[in-house]
Amino acid sequence: MTRTLITGGLVITASDELHADVLVEGGRVVALASHGSHDWQAEHVIDAAQKYVIPGGVDAHTHMEMPFGGTQASDTFETGTLAAAWGGTTTLVDFAIQPKGGSLQAGLDTWHAKADGVCAIDYAFHMIMSDVNASSLREMDRLVESGVSSFKLFTAYPGVFLSDDGQILRAMQRAAANGALVMTHAENGLAIDVLVEQALARGERDPRHHGEVRKALLEAEATHRVIRLAQVAGAPVYVVHVSAREAVAELMRARDEGLPVFGETCPQYLFLSTDNLAEPDFEGAKYVCSTPLRPAEHQETLWRALRTNDLQVVSTDHCPFCFKGQKELGRGDFSKIPNGMPGVENRMDLLHQAVVDGHIDRRRWIEIACTAPARMFGLHPKKGTIAPGSDADLVIYDPHAEQTLSARTHHMNVDYSPYEGRRVTGRVETVLSRGVPVIENRRHTGRAGHGVYVPRGLGHYAG
Amino acid sequence: MTRTLITGGLVITASDELHADVLVEGGRVVALASHGSHDWQAEHVIDAAQKYVIPGGVDAHTHMEMPFGGTQASDTFETGTLAAAWGGTTTLVDFAIQPKGGSLQAGLDTWHAKADGVCAIDYAFHMIMSDVNASSLREMDRLVESGVSSFKLFTAYPGVFLSDDGQILRAMQRAAANGALVMTHAENGLAIDVLVEQALARGERDPRHHGEVRKALLEAEATHRVIRLAQVAGAPVYVVHVSAREAVAELMRARDEGLPVFGETCPQYLFLSTDNLAEPDFEGAKYVCSTPLRPAEHQETLWRALRTNDLQVVSTDHCPFCFKGQKELGRGDFSKIPNGMPGVENRMDLLHQAVVDGHIDRRRWIEIACTAPARMFGLHPKKGTIAPGSDADLVIYDPHAEQTLSARTHHMNVDYSPYEGRRVTGRVETVLSRGVPVIENRRHTGRAGHGVYVPRGLGHYAG
Amino acid sequence: MTRTLITGGLVITASDELHADVLVEGGRVVALASHGSHDWQAEHVIDAAQKYVIPGGVDAHTHMEMPFGGTQASDTFETGTLAAAWGGTTTLVDFAIQPKGGSLQAGLDTWHAKADGVCAIDYAFHMIMSDVNASSLREMDRLVESGVSSFKLFTAYPGVFLSDDGQILRAMQRAAANGALVMTHAENGLAIDVLVEQALARGERDPRHHGEVRKALLEAEATHRVIRLAQVAGAPVYVVHVSAREAVAELMRARDEGLPVFGETCPQYLFLSTDNLAEPDFEGAKYVCSTPLRPAEHQETLWRALRTNDLQVVSTDHCPFCFKGQKELGRGDFSKIPNGMPGVENRMDLLHQAVVDGHIDRRRWIEIACTAPARMFGLHPKKGTIAPGSDADLVIYDPHAEQTLSARTHHMNVDYSPYEGRRVTGRVETVLSRGVPVIENRRHTGRAGHGVYVPRGLGHYAG
Amino acid sequence: MTRTLITGGLVITASDELHADVLVEGGRVVALASHGSHDWQAEHVIDAAQKYVIPGGVDAHTHMEMPFGGTQASDTFETGTLAAAWGGTTTLVDFAIQPKGGSLQAGLDTWHAKADGVCAIDYAFHMIMSDVNASSLREMDRLVESGVSSFKLFTAYPGVFLSDDGQILRAMQRAAANGALVMTHAENGLAIDVLVEQALARGERDPRHHGEVRKALLEAEATHRVIRLAQVAGAPVYVVHVSAREAVAELMRARDEGLPVFGETCPQYLFLSTDNLAEPDFEGAKYVCSTPLRPAEHQETLWRALRTNDLQVVSTDHCPFCFKGQKELGRGDFSKIPNGMPGVENRMDLLHQAVVDGHIDRRRWIEIACTAPARMFGLHPKKGTIAPGSDADLVIYDPHAEQTLSARTHHMNVDYSPYEGRRVTGRVETVLSRGVPVIENRRHTGRAGHGVYVPRGLGHYAG
Repeated sequence: MTRTLITGGLVITASDELHADVLVEGGRVVALASHGSHDWQAEHVIDAAQKYVIPGGVDAHTHMEMPFGGTQASDTFETGTLAAAWGGTTTLVDFAIQPKGGSLQAGLDTWHAKADGVCAIDYAFHMIMSDVNASSLREMDRLVESGVSSFKLFTAYPGVFLSDDGQILRAMQRAAANGALVMTHAENGLAIDVLVEQALARGERDPRHHGEVRKALLEAEATHRVIRLAQVAGAPVYVVHVSAREAVAELMRARDEGLPVFGETCPQYLFLSTDNLAEPDFEGAKYVCSTPLRPAEHQETLWRALRTNDLQVVSTDHCPFCFKGQKELGRGDFSKIPNGMPGVENRMDLLHQAVVDGHIDRRRWIEIACTAPARMFGLHPKKGTIAPGSDADLVIYDPHAEQTLSARTHHMNVDYSPYEGRRVTGRVETVLSRGVPVIENRRHTGRAGHGVYVPRGLGHYAG
Repeated sequence: MTRTLITGGLVITASDELHADVLVEGGRVVALASHGSHDWQAEHVIDAAQKYVIPGGVDAHTHMEMPFGGTQASDTFETGTLAAAWGGTTTLVDFAIQPKGGSLQAGLDTWHAKADGVCAIDYAFHMIMSDVNASSLREMDRLVESGVSSFKLFTAYPGVFLSDDGQILRAMQRAAANGALVMTHAENGLAIDVLVEQALARGERDPRHHGEVRKALLEAEATHRVIRLAQVAGAPVYVVHVSAREAVAELMRARDEGLPVFGETCPQYLFLSTDNLAEPDFEGAKYVCSTPLRPAEHQETLWRALRTNDLQVVSTDHCPFCFKGQKELGRGDFSKIPNGMPGVENRMDLLHQAVVDGHIDRRRWIEIACTAPARMFGLHPKKGTIAPGSDADLVIYDPHAEQTLSARTHHMNVDYSPYEGRRVTGRVETVLSRGVPVIENRRHTGRAGHGVYVPRGLGHYAG
Repeated sequence: MTRTLITGGLVITASDELHADVLVEGGRVVALASHGSHDWQAEHVIDAAQKYVIPGGVDAHTHMEMPFGGTQASDTFETGTLAAAWGGTTTLVDFAIQPKGGSLQAGLDTWHAKADGVCAIDYAFHMIMSDVNASSLREMDRLVESGVSSFKLFTAYPGVFLSDDGQILRAMQRAAANGALVMTHAENGLAIDVLVEQALARGERDPRHHGEVRKALLEAEATHRVIRLAQVAGAPVYVVHVSAREAVAELMRARDEGLPVFGETCPQYLFLSTDNLAEPDFEGAKYVCSTPLRPAEHQETLWRALRTNDLQVVSTDHCPFCFKGQKELGRGDFSKIPNGMPGVENRMDLLHQAVVDGHIDRRRWIEIACTAPARMFGLHPKKGTIAPGSDADLVIYDPHAEQTLSARTHHMNVDYSPYEGRRVTGRVETVLSRGVPVIENRRHTGRAGHGVYVPRGLGHYAG
Repeated sequence: MTRTLITGGLVITASDELHADVLVEGGRVVALASHGSHDWQAEHVIDAAQKYVIPGGVDAHTHMEMPFGGTQASDTFETGTLAAAWGGTTTLVDFAIQPKGGSLQAGLDTWHAKADGVCAIDYAFHMIMSDVNASSLREMDRLVESGVSSFKLFTAYPGVFLSDDGQILRAMQRAAANGALVMTHAENGLAIDVLVEQALARGERDPRHHGEVRKALLEAEATHRVIRLAQVAGAPVYVVHVSAREAVAELMRARDEGLPVFGETCPQYLFLSTDNLAEPDFEGAKYVCSTPLRPAEHQETLWRALRTNDLQVVSTDHCPFCFKGQKELGRGDFSKIPNGMPGVENRMDLLHQAVVDGHIDRRRWIEIACTAPARMFGLHPKKGTIAPGSDADLVIYDPHAEQTLSARTHHMNVDYSPYEGRRVTGRVETVLSRGVPVIENRRHTGRAGHGVYVPRGLGHYAG
């Protein structure tokens, strides 16, 4: 078997920072040793001096090729996974969608067909339940056994994805029994739809009104609701894309009570705000996603929650729509703007910038971006860490390089960058996926189809 | 005009206790004076020495003749209002019900027809909205103007009374505009229905399971939800029959934030518990109401909240069903037991017992039973206090008399008492309604039809 | 006996607003009656049409002639009580001070000597304990019996008034036994003295540094501390001059736990801020008091707490020092500026302005300024309300008159007004003390020495 | 250099569990590798199949040979460090004490003299400040530079260790500047002394009264106080031996606010209770320590806080006094019982039992007992983890062995065990200190004086 040796770097995991060489064989890390303490030979040697050696990122929330409002997300699994790799992410967990009136398996089959044979990096699936009934509840057990151990329910999007509280309770009860993790999009969709209708009736049609009608209080309300439903079911719950400080407060309260309640936020909530939604000439449409961006003062609470572990994961909710032809569907009616933003390529860099800015330290960077999502979703220790036995999904990261984020240079299949022109310190240099270079010294060396589907076990969310 | 003079008693209001004589003329209190300081003459003199002179009770939550599950509450307006008078209550606010598919006015007309010309004491109406739509929302304004200034919405009873969160929000918005007060029955009915179905499937069919499936957390959840919806609407909200300490916690939190959020509890939650629901031989059915009775340890929180003003009102939710023939409909299936309990006659006495027991002081007794409900629902200062200009709805209360509560002696038209055999200190001696004796020295001297409908103004809930 | 009749006004108490005539005889209110319902005759008739008839204010926190830092407060009992009357206040509770090394009684005797025979209105005393020891602890019981039922302890002013936590606990234990109420000045004086020393060493010598070193967190800390000490002692506690929102948060938390914990704030914290302390040319010295003024954003929390009853009383902490010759003692060293501000004359007007501004309603105005302090300190129902049997301490208040607050027109013996030039709506027109006009149509008609000492009973702080 | 190879074990760190071989050379871990992936040779091979390989424990709170109340702790550095090794602990941080009136350095010299050349394992020192003044404040900087980076202050023990709030603030300010960590014993000692005196006066002289007078509320009060003082100083704070749920609540609140506030608890608070203090025949004296044991229901809160990271460290506060001759000094007067309990040998086993019992998982066991204390006190990554470059302080732990805790078999120099007869699952088999076997297959193979002093860096307490 080919051996790869990474020498002289600073290995950073969720718990340690150590100057160590890393030996890779058969797609796995087989050993770590103090630099100079060994006489390892390898066919392939990577000099990581002055660099970080970190686990490849795990992005637990992406929507490649997702149909939405008559169009679909502009990144395919091929383009999206390659962009992820460019950004230092080596595992995605995307969302398969149960078709209305169909089975979970049917949805899963559809998503397997989209991803099979084209991905640059490894991937797994969550399952969106859009039709909770006796049959789909039974199917949950089978999916857990086959490696799909998390299910997403919505309190938002009435008529599309919304499950009522009885359905959510039933799914949570099933999860309590079979060990799965229920994920929730927590916004009160019925109330929001009233506010949308009223806003449009008042002639409020610009993108910024998207942020105004999807009120923070209605995110907090639904967050509290799913927490209590989970408590009744005896199940854990994971709230996706938390953006409002009022929602964070609900998570904190539940966690202070000792409940197994978890939360994810996304880079857009940490770095962007309603100021972006208010950009003129319909530019705000670029920033339309749900939950929406919040006023900038919410960011401080999100950072604090990431430090205090009241939020555990940063994913991207990557769901890109081009400005031209897609976002534009909502000109004159913000409610018709496809909801979603790109980001799968930017997450690791933006969070490294947060290290530079002092919001988090290096170990926490790795924890929220790699280790915690891997643990939460049953991929650890195969993914998310650097240890003998783990997959050699490794990133050589240059903490001193500077770069400017831009649609001109990014690899995502979308015609704008929400971070256009933003200067950040730190850059991915080399990316290994199971020991194989996908990106090497910032050249693409991988191939479509290298990435394989990874069935997942149950999550370990303690702590 | 006839004058009545009440001499030598201790007049107790929400704010004062004073030895004063009370002069009544033309159905109103016209003067208060220190005993011995005046030379008033009156046709009718009542000696209240050693007694309390208190405002007649205001029971803001009753359901006379209410249809429920194929039967109807066993007290008519005639029997129920007379029983109220025997218990020292001189004003009821009952609930008119919008028929499904019909107008608010239609419901109101039906209830007027039931009450007109038969009541022993004065009465008013809240409106239950069971069909929130553009038409009924418009009707709200008209009803407010005509004296129905409060509207009840349900998060419970799917398919019967439940409004979805969008409907509740719309009604609250309307109330924010027209000054009405939205009242809510706050339990997550969709989740409860799942638990009911599962309990029955497991063979859990006794009355005590009624208390187990209607979980405290699901009351707390809905309480939080209606609070946040009200906050979004910019409206106050009043939560009826609060029974769970977890729900009280939500009220406290909202009130600490300065929100106009109010709560009512009932004597059954203060004096009874799940121990009663667990009484053998189907006796537990006598105690089936919703929200359900809670474990006894919740009582301490309710008393504390009454002291700290986190709960403002004690009403009865009087909705009696006879054990024979009515409660029995649920033998073998707790979900078929008509929900409701008698209590309109017992409230003032039970709360006086709370004074004796040290839970509250005398002024707070009057506040939660008379003054606060009158203020909350736009009846003050006409009702709920003793002051020149107020209606002479007065009770001469003997604080030293002892009595035993029992179905054998009560005047409610129901074949059991939930407080059977309970010994209490304090008893109503004489009751005036607008100056006219309804009960005099514990003899009935009034007549059916004395009581009139009282249109209400807007509530004053500050403080 | 002389009778006085007040006709046609709107009588406002803590619980009611009613159009009623008030009959006064023998220094007491003897009757209230609906206007036009009676044929009362009186020697003295006051026409209160278009006016409010309210209870005279009870100011539970004043320091007339108080020695402080080598000077003494500039109002004597004669000038200060007359100014109080001009402002609609008819009862003061001033602070007698135990001399260091001396007895409580010695301090009380000294203060009686100051006040005896010179006061315009009635007065009572709290006792400041500056030397808690076995002897002074024993004395507490005797003072309670003789009408001094509240004792003030300090966590501030080391070496002057500070008692250590053991002493405070002992005094609270004694109060728990004899029914007295312990009042506390809650700031961490030892920590503040460190910050004062460091600020002066850094050359920070202007008045505004007074506000910076006496940190809100150190008020909150001491507030929490005295609450827990009181809880250990099983005693209630009343925190004087609460100014910081962090301190309010501690009171709220304790009250949510059901503890008998009470708080007072003062007009200066509601209407002034650190902006005043920062006024140039040493003008900031006019606003030096302790606890200090806070940034303006704290005001919102104080108003909310007054509405939610987390604060119960507004007193003045009236302790005036002239700018010339007194405040000037601290030029070049803020720590030498005498601590204290005038206000006894402005309280009722400023709080009426709060009614006009919508912060509180009329009944709450009367409650926090008259009724609650009377109840809290054992003066109710003699003082603080309008009811048959109560002292005829009454104010005819013109809610429509406008006035400008100014040192040129005020009656306090101090050469500046902290509210100089402030325009307010509402003005005292006539003031009766036990039925005797002290101010009549804005002319002084009373005499020094009319006011008498009022021994107090135990407080009734429930609710 | 001698090489040691540990093969076939399950390596557990704070973040990972992996089947890996560990190579030790020159006293350090030099490499980890998947079992079977390498061909390492070593002089010394340890077969860890079926065993755990864990970092040696770090006990951050011991008091060897500490003088207290006229006697001294019964374990010397020689006996105590050896007992620690037997229990799987390889690093101690003991407390040097500043003599009253003397310098920090004088105290440190004294403690160095006690420990030098006799210890079985490595050790470091915290510094107890018993005399905060200008000189000792200046000395803090020098100590930090020389490896003593944490300082303990007391709000308890007036006249012995107590610093007043001004002194505590000054020390915290210095720590904020020089990077040190202030540790606090948080109990209100002045209030406790009052309660002690009163209890003795009432004839309450048994050991159980020790627990009654040192009230949970007074621990909570002081905990809140030191948190606020630290906040004013801009410094982190670490609260030692947290035992009361009310104190945990204060830590939680502060951490929810994002403050750098940390807490340690001890095995005695997790496994023992006031039931032990109440053991008859003066046996309760064995359990006298401060903070005291609490009622058993507090344990649930402590476990939850360890899971939610509201408590970060479990240390022992090892401070043994023999029952005979030492504890007996307090017969007839609980206040004279030397405060302290043994435990340095039992910590790792008791916390493993907590894993068996389901309170925590294996990684959290290692985190709270090894990694977190090493990070908190500037010993990481040298101590507290297993990684290339770290000291080879390693324990081979048999998770299946059973043992019975007893004074008959323990190695601590004390004549009783607080856990006498308790059966636990799990046992230390072999202990390496910097690669040298101290305990090998449960035989002592080390030597007094192997252990060396370890100067510490600054703590890294983020997360």
